[in-house]
Amino acid sequence: MSHSAVARRCIIIITLLLPFSVLFQHLPAQEKQPGKQRFGIVLHGGAGTILKGSMTPDLERDYREKLTQALTAGYTILKNNGSSLDAVEAAIRILEDSPLFNAGKGAVFTHEGTNELDAAVMDGKTLKAGAVAAVKHIKNPISLARMVMERSPHVMMVGDGAEAFAKAQGMELVGAEYFYTERRWKQLQAARAKEEQQKDSSKLKKYPVPDTSVHGTVGCAALDKMGNLASGTSTGGVTNKRYGRVGDSPIIGSGTYANNSTCAVSATGTGEYFIRSVVAHDISALMEYKGLSLKEAAETVVMVKLVKLGGDGGVIAIDKDGNIAMPFNTSGMYRAYIDTTGNPVVKIYRE
Amino acid sequence: MSHSAVARRCIIIITLLLPFSVLFQHLPAQEKQPGKQRFGIVLHGGAGTILKGSMTPDLERDYREKLTQALTAGYTILKNNGSSLDAVEAAIRILEDSPLFNAGKGAVFTHEGTNELDAAVMDGKTLKAGAVAAVKHIKNPISLARMVMERSPHVMMVGDGAEAFAKAQGMELVGAEYFYTERRWKQLQAARAKEEQQKDSSKLKKYPVPDTSVHGTVGCAALDKMGNLASGTSTGGVTNKRYGRVGDSPIIGSGTYANNSTCAVSATGTGEYFIRSVVAHDISALMEYKGLSLKEAAETVVMVKLVKLGGDGGVIAIDKDGNIAMPFNTSGMYRAYIDTTGNPVVKIYRE
Repeated sequence: MSHSAVARRCIIIITLLLPFSVLFQHLPAQEKQPGKQRFGIVLHGGAGTILKGSMTPDLERDYREKLTQALTAGYTILKNNGSSLDAVEAAIRILEDSPLFNAGKGAVFTHEGTNELDAAVMDGKTLKAGAVAAVKHIKNPISLARMVMERSPHVMMVGDGAEAFAKAQGMELVGAEYFYTERRWKQLQAARAKEEQQKDSSKLKKYPVPDTSVHGTVGCAALDKMGNLASGTSTGGVTNKRYGRVGDSPIIGSGTYANNSTCAVSATGTGEYFIRSVVAHDISALMEYKGLSLKEAAETVVMVKLVKLGGDGGVIAIDKDGNIAMPFNTSGMYRAYIDTTGNPVVKIYRE
Repeated sequence: MSHSAVARRCIIIITLLLPFSVLFQHLPAQEKQPGKQRFGIVLHGGAGTILKGSMTPDLERDYREKLTQALTAGYTILKNNGSSLDAVEAAIRILEDSPLFNAGKGAVFTHEGTNELDAAVMDGKTLKAGAVAAVKHIKNPISLARMVMERSPHVMMVGDGAEAFAKAQGMELVGAEYFYTERRWKQLQAARAKEEQQKDSSKLKKYPVPDTSVHGTVGCAALDKMGNLASGTSTGGVTNKRYGRVGDSPIIGSGTYANNSTCAVSATGTGEYFIRSVVAHDISALMEYKGLSLKEAAETVVMVKLVKLGGDGGVIAIDKDGNIAMPFNTSGMYRAYIDTTGNPVVKIYRE
């Protein structure tokens, strides 16, 4: 067959196929086919020094069970056409109600022996957000953050004011004793003892650095069938914290960010470094402005930029196509996800 | 002359010039030549509904004088080889001490008739940052924010805790009466009366929207001779605010951000929209990841993205080369700058 004959045949084939290309234009992505919508959920229960050697089989099983329970609760909402916001709130409430994590019930103690909780939530569709910081009598701070977002013109409320808002909205407050757990109380005593030692030593520090090796912040990010992203984060901060210290969890752009045009992110780690790096928004910006994939963007921020600055921790994130990333630069991060394939995955250590 | 002869001569010339290239490597930019360092400062005293028709000549003169005084104080520090951090703090302290602006002395009243102040500062060289929110007895919140940055391992402290830190650092606290000004008290009464009217009307709102037409947040950004950027912001928030509301001013990445590789920014406006847009970091990210100029980046965020979302206000910003941008989408913004040419400029209205 001559070259011109080949060219003629090619033109004929292309001409015949042209009308069908319209079909593909209208169905470019899987999520637009009815019944085949992409959705997924990813969550974390904190990153830090988590070593298999110092974990009992019972405790590891407890963690895995609780992560699975939260994951399943969120996923079920998404599967039944619920919103990513509902899924994120439901999953985080379960983690807040467990004494295992440093959020809600299991929050660490401040220097004064109180519990000061922070939380934030963001809706990727509207870019609306809600956050609370330094609240002491809120069982589920993630739900109060959502109330701030949905029932007030504000984004952030702190301290007694945030609790007054909770009361005005009919939310029941809990007594300080609700947050007492023996494990966290012992951690505070240990941190105080260490602080006293530091004071006595010649290497006296003007401001003892709080113990940040124990993390346990919880967070969740989800994509629902409508293509809407959402994320949320909840924490008790760091053991022995004082002076009304607030970390990155309730800071929109740092610990929590969601934007339908890019991704939804929740972070965990040494909060100060995450604020200074504006971690969650930086991941979104690297995707939007530099064309990086979720994986590339999240790894650039967590494994390169944060490490360079000295920040420990990780993030969980999901993008608008349902891709999931969970980079962390510590020895472990409690994490779990169900991606678009529908299979649940729960992990703790680096693997 | 033959080709080979030309080539030979070229090689000789290049060889002779090579040793001098070392000189140029060490002096790549103008700012590194002694006596010709680029430096500059820009500040704002709030954006909002500022109309020439509703301003008396005396009041306008007072505003221009105070802006000039703050500008000169900051610029003098830079000129005398001081740091951008020192310049930013000095300029903001002068604006905080004036009753004209909604920060420090002139802070607006909360619903309860108290004053709750927020401030933040960021060092573009180290990416260190400090912020305080909801403090009631701090004469110069910008200086407390700097103390948090320099004398604690934390970035953000709120409420009574932040004041306890101030005391522990030897800072003198002021009584609540220090913040009383007749003008702000009258504004609260007017806002309360308007709120009562809203309650009585059929268009009852569950949560009366605070009056955000009066802005007056102050902020400053500077580039020093060493090439270091810094920015800071200080505010009393919005009149009649309640429930411990915190706006964008003390949120690193939103109201305040500085990074030597891009720019330093301070924002003013309807804070909630600025938080949701992560305004200050977004300007930096557009420069870093998309290659936009400071002017293009700041205008994209303030005049396009914020307007689309419904946010009112503006930013002042300076980049690593000393370029200045001051976009605002309201009728006016108190603003002033001295750029690398050394000429002071003070403006209030759109012009």
